[in-house]
Amino acid sequence: MIKRRRVTVIGAGFMGSMHASIFANMVGCELAAIVDPNLDLAGVVAAKAPGCKVYASHEALLAVERDLDLVSICTPDNLHLAPAVAVAQAGINVFVEKPISSKVEDARAIIAACEAAKVKLGVGYLLRFDPRYAAARELMTSGKIGEPIHIYARRNSARTEGPKRYGGKLPLALHVTVHDVDMVLWMLDGQHPVSVYAQQTDRLLGAAGTQDSLAAIVRFSGGTVVNFESAWSLPSGARHMIDARMELIGTEGAFEVQCGDSGLYYAGSDNSREIDTQHWPTVNGRIDGDLARQLNGLLAWLDGAAMPIATGRDALRSLELTLAMMQSAESGEIVRLG
Amino acid sequence: MIKRRRVTVIGAGFMGSMHASIFANMVGCELAAIVDPNLDLAGVVAAKAPGCKVYASHEALLAVERDLDLVSICTPDNLHLAPAVAVAQAGINVFVEKPISSKVEDARAIIAACEAAKVKLGVGYLLRFDPRYAAARELMTSGKIGEPIHIYARRNSARTEGPKRYGGKLPLALHVTVHDVDMVLWMLDGQHPVSVYAQQTDRLLGAAGTQDSLAAIVRFSGGTVVNFESAWSLPSGARHMIDARMELIGTEGAFEVQCGDSGLYYAGSDNSREIDTQHWPTVNGRIDGDLARQLNGLLAWLDGAAMPIATGRDALRSLELTLAMMQSAESGEIVRLG
Amino acid sequence: MIKRRRVTVIGAGFMGSMHASIFANMVGCELAAIVDPNLDLAGVVAAKAPGCKVYASHEALLAVERDLDLVSICTPDNLHLAPAVAVAQAGINVFVEKPISSKVEDARAIIAACEAAKVKLGVGYLLRFDPRYAAARELMTSGKIGEPIHIYARRNSARTEGPKRYGGKLPLALHVTVHDVDMVLWMLDGQHPVSVYAQQTDRLLGAAGTQDSLAAIVRFSGGTVVNFESAWSLPSGARHMIDARMELIGTEGAFEVQCGDSGLYYAGSDNSREIDTQHWPTVNGRIDGDLARQLNGLLAWLDGAAMPIATGRDALRSLELTLAMMQSAESGEIVRLG
Amino acid sequence: MIKRRRVTVIGAGFMGSMHASIFANMVGCELAAIVDPNLDLAGVVAAKAPGCKVYASHEALLAVERDLDLVSICTPDNLHLAPAVAVAQAGINVFVEKPISSKVEDARAIIAACEAAKVKLGVGYLLRFDPRYAAARELMTSGKIGEPIHIYARRNSARTEGPKRYGGKLPLALHVTVHDVDMVLWMLDGQHPVSVYAQQTDRLLGAAGTQDSLAAIVRFSGGTVVNFESAWSLPSGARHMIDARMELIGTEGAFEVQCGDSGLYYAGSDNSREIDTQHWPTVNGRIDGDLARQLNGLLAWLDGAAMPIATGRDALRSLELTLAMMQSAESGEIVRLG
Repeated sequence: MIKRRRVTVIGAGFMGSMHASIFANMVGCELAAIVDPNLDLAGVVAAKAPGCKVYASHEALLAVERDLDLVSICTPDNLHLAPAVAVAQAGINVFVEKPISSKVEDARAIIAACEAAKVKLGVGYLLRFDPRYAAARELMTSGKIGEPIHIYARRNSARTEGPKRYGGKLPLALHVTVHDVDMVLWMLDGQHPVSVYAQQTDRLLGAAGTQDSLAAIVRFSGGTVVNFESAWSLPSGARHMIDARMELIGTEGAFEVQCGDSGLYYAGSDNSREIDTQHWPTVNGRIDGDLARQLNGLLAWLDGAAMPIATGRDALRSLELTLAMMQSAESGEIVRLG
Repeated sequence: MIKRRRVTVIGAGFMGSMHASIFANMVGCELAAIVDPNLDLAGVVAAKAPGCKVYASHEALLAVERDLDLVSICTPDNLHLAPAVAVAQAGINVFVEKPISSKVEDARAIIAACEAAKVKLGVGYLLRFDPRYAAARELMTSGKIGEPIHIYARRNSARTEGPKRYGGKLPLALHVTVHDVDMVLWMLDGQHPVSVYAQQTDRLLGAAGTQDSLAAIVRFSGGTVVNFESAWSLPSGARHMIDARMELIGTEGAFEVQCGDSGLYYAGSDNSREIDTQHWPTVNGRIDGDLARQLNGLLAWLDGAAMPIATGRDALRSLELTLAMMQSAESGEIVRLG
Repeated sequence: MIKRRRVTVIGAGFMGSMHASIFANMVGCELAAIVDPNLDLAGVVAAKAPGCKVYASHEALLAVERDLDLVSICTPDNLHLAPAVAVAQAGINVFVEKPISSKVEDARAIIAACEAAKVKLGVGYLLRFDPRYAAARELMTSGKIGEPIHIYARRNSARTEGPKRYGGKLPLALHVTVHDVDMVLWMLDGQHPVSVYAQQTDRLLGAAGTQDSLAAIVRFSGGTVVNFESAWSLPSGARHMIDARMELIGTEGAFEVQCGDSGLYYAGSDNSREIDTQHWPTVNGRIDGDLARQLNGLLAWLDGAAMPIATGRDALRSLELTLAMMQSAESGEIVRLG
Repeated sequence: MIKRRRVTVIGAGFMGSMHASIFANMVGCELAAIVDPNLDLAGVVAAKAPGCKVYASHEALLAVERDLDLVSICTPDNLHLAPAVAVAQAGINVFVEKPISSKVEDARAIIAACEAAKVKLGVGYLLRFDPRYAAARELMTSGKIGEPIHIYARRNSARTEGPKRYGGKLPLALHVTVHDVDMVLWMLDGQHPVSVYAQQTDRLLGAAGTQDSLAAIVRFSGGTVVNFESAWSLPSGARHMIDARMELIGTEGAFEVQCGDSGLYYAGSDNSREIDTQHWPTVNGRIDGDLARQLNGLLAWLDGAAMPIATGRDALRSLELTLAMMQSAESGEIVRLG
């Protein structure tokens, strides 16, 4: 007999709804409650699990529910601080969608609250659970790559997707590039960034409060040079959902992670698309892929299993490097770090 | 509180070992025993789960263990019949790796035993749990494809892999093509094959007791024409593990499943390879991908969830069509079916 | 000092216009005349070359122009016979677009007329001048492939292209598959086909007087099995102009020719496309690629250079095999050849 | 009747030999002489054309041959100056392989000599004659791309190729990146670079006197940001000859040039390779592709045709920008340009 983990999701939007759906189907897990100021929306999401309750705020939640193993925070990125700290102070483990925050001081406050309360803090860098990136990292730790020399990391998507959802709220770099920053820091275990240079454009999307593209070059302490490229300004007719790649040249071998061509291509009468088969595909009626694998791994990690859930300190490192890119792109100057 | 399902795996070889590893890590599952005439090998596999016992035969297993929810049979394909029937007669649910058998009469006997004992019978067609094929089928049921007109299904791999493991034991078609046969029958729900023509070659691998390649054309009752191509004679330097594709043209749209380029390419000093990221990749230390997804789905299916586990009757249909291909390839004549 | 070859093109349509444009820009060549019953159209094409004349028929041409080195016949496929015979009888070398004809007796008559008149006869199988196919054949003659075991040859395109231009005039196989038939016969030098089986569909394009798709399996005298697949029924939104492939497995090595992804992908606001870079791309204002390379090779061949221009007898062989496929597809029976 | 152009090639190495072979087969062209201090090597190359003479130096050539239309200079890059100036002063048109020189002052001297002598000066940037890049530029001039926002330009190859031939003689940037610099300047007609930042690595190839990789970000006067990436440190087992790409996002559309997958893939028993089908493939016994197309275009350009042969001033611009990248990579500082 095993006890079910009781989990709550705060935020009933795009990501929160997916979290809820995954927890609702997970063996050994009980989706206890959904929190959202829009109680109707919360109710729709809660309907996925029998007995799941709804609350309008994290205060309302914590006033009633104390026997929780985990709260997953999927609010807009600038609204992570208050629920994360409150949940930690209630002695409950915290999971926050990426980035941990858009401000270093908020990230530090969340980390401090979790450490003080002795609860675990995970951050939603789901690519660590993508079979392509995870096996690439395994190539590195196995010695097949040797010492890393050069990395190219790209993440490009259509102007009709991200900018519509996030324009004006969070910059391109903090939404998009930060994924690759986390991956690079994960791959380059033991190195730290020493200099950062970036350029960006905003010709197309400046009016929508965001950037078209960002290119950055980061030099690391061990001599590895990393070239980041991000854009959410591809034309709307492009066939890729996310044209993401990571290519690493090492002294002994090289790898290429390629996520644009997904293995499933659809053509209709008007256009054609690659269909997601890794990030959060629905497989036979259930949300699966990296996101589900991460949330399964998260529960195992709470139980003590070795899982590469990004910690608060990992997330702080990726936030700091991403902010340095933004600072360089805005000033046109090199930013030198530690 | 939830009760753990008790599972046993018969066969401690390549597939049995992977099944055992997946069940051992599955929440809500207890790997109760491993059965193999080689008890040392069984012991190595059993070591993955605390308390897991070993038995030298299914008779020995069933003499002791009666409180089992599932037995997964991963013996060589010609040794499915006896354990499957015995497990069914013991009132325990049966899962058999594909193909259900190499003989129609054995397949029918297994099905009959399970029906008589009122236990469930699943067969290991893991591609039904591959996000690419599963989402392709979803395109069909959603109406985005319209009526299917033409399908091309390929499955090619290197001469150094399959033929070494299986040459002389089971023909190319029953090992390899049968995967695509099951997929096509799954996609063409409601149609049945009416004529089959095939040609094969054995110039390279005839001496090893198997075929180099097989090409087949099958016409279905609804007018859809399907072109199958299988080979396990690619040169050993080829970069693909399995160059598998399924491409379907419909009246409204088309899809292409492409499994050869896996999203992770490795180059070393001698050659380069695509690395498996979907069938059974190890992700962060655990076997994941289609196989794990299928075995998770299997337990849910035992509990009553709607899951596309291939049934005994599904497996009988794919066996019959595959045998018709072999008959045509050997005789050089068209085989006409029902 | 070198003498210019005087060339005439019969037919001012899609292909004739490209031939004319290429000859007009070719060093050492004079485009002497264009022949088309539509004199206005002929005039537009003739304007590409200073001094180029126009005629309404091949009879009118031959009544005036006798000092010609070559006449290229780009009329509709069912109108090759009369001009080809007349040009040959006038003692002028003949080039005919593929297929040489849709009837074996017409093909034989053209060949006989050219042999009787001792003029050269070439047929427009431009893929022999495609760097991908030409280098693939070089792999075979170099011994890197060993003996050929199995070939897969595909040629798929959108329902909005070919069927609109050619539907009702010439079947799919004679327009499309015949390209791959010529390539396979070229690759399998010394072998001849012994059995042919094919199936076709016409659900979508039957009303337009053509087929959607064709699949064929041909066994050759040396034991090589070839699997042909052709379709011009891909959805109009598909990104490929022509998704053509030829994959050959040999005893020593294998090759894959892949023509769908062209090396230039364009995405706009509505959809995305691969852009032709090999068949007849315009490069810096001039028609280039396989077609131009073939016509340059043609003039060198007239001068005695060794060039793989398809001869009349080559074209007769590919016609006969293609007609056998059509016969099998229509009858549902195996066609056995010599 | 047309007069033949008389052409001489200086340098009988890898590139000079290919130039000679192409000129020897070109209609309307006479390969008059080969110049190389190694007269035996010159003789081997001269044997490709009947009557072709050999000389040990450009001084010896010019002492005898005055009736030349063109001299193509394929000497090592640091030995362009003397022959180029002497040929120009003899009143003969000059073609120089890229880069025009490794020094700005030499480039200026060559340009001045040609302008003073009123002869034409072309530089061998063959990608301008590649159908992929040429058609991509046509997309830009046609308006389908709109205003350029962001470009990514890559050129990566194996450590076993370039570094062995060129290590210690010319840096990675001047051999490799300079191709993409010319392409970008050609695409961004009317813009000039305003700031340059680069980083390089030399962990692997430093001992061989060259760099492993270079990443650079250049901002142009019109706001376009360009990200360059070059490496000749891929492992020797990598399947690509040159993994080159250029991807441009514009306000109206985007394009991707992809040169790594060539359309012809070969797998043998040890490894697999993409085979060149565009740069200088041998097609049916003759060197073809970009290089041949460029040299054909060169002769047309001498006759007054509009052809995008890179001029001396074009080559000076690409040299200056490439040198700025090298300066930034060595200093670690931003280089700001006029």
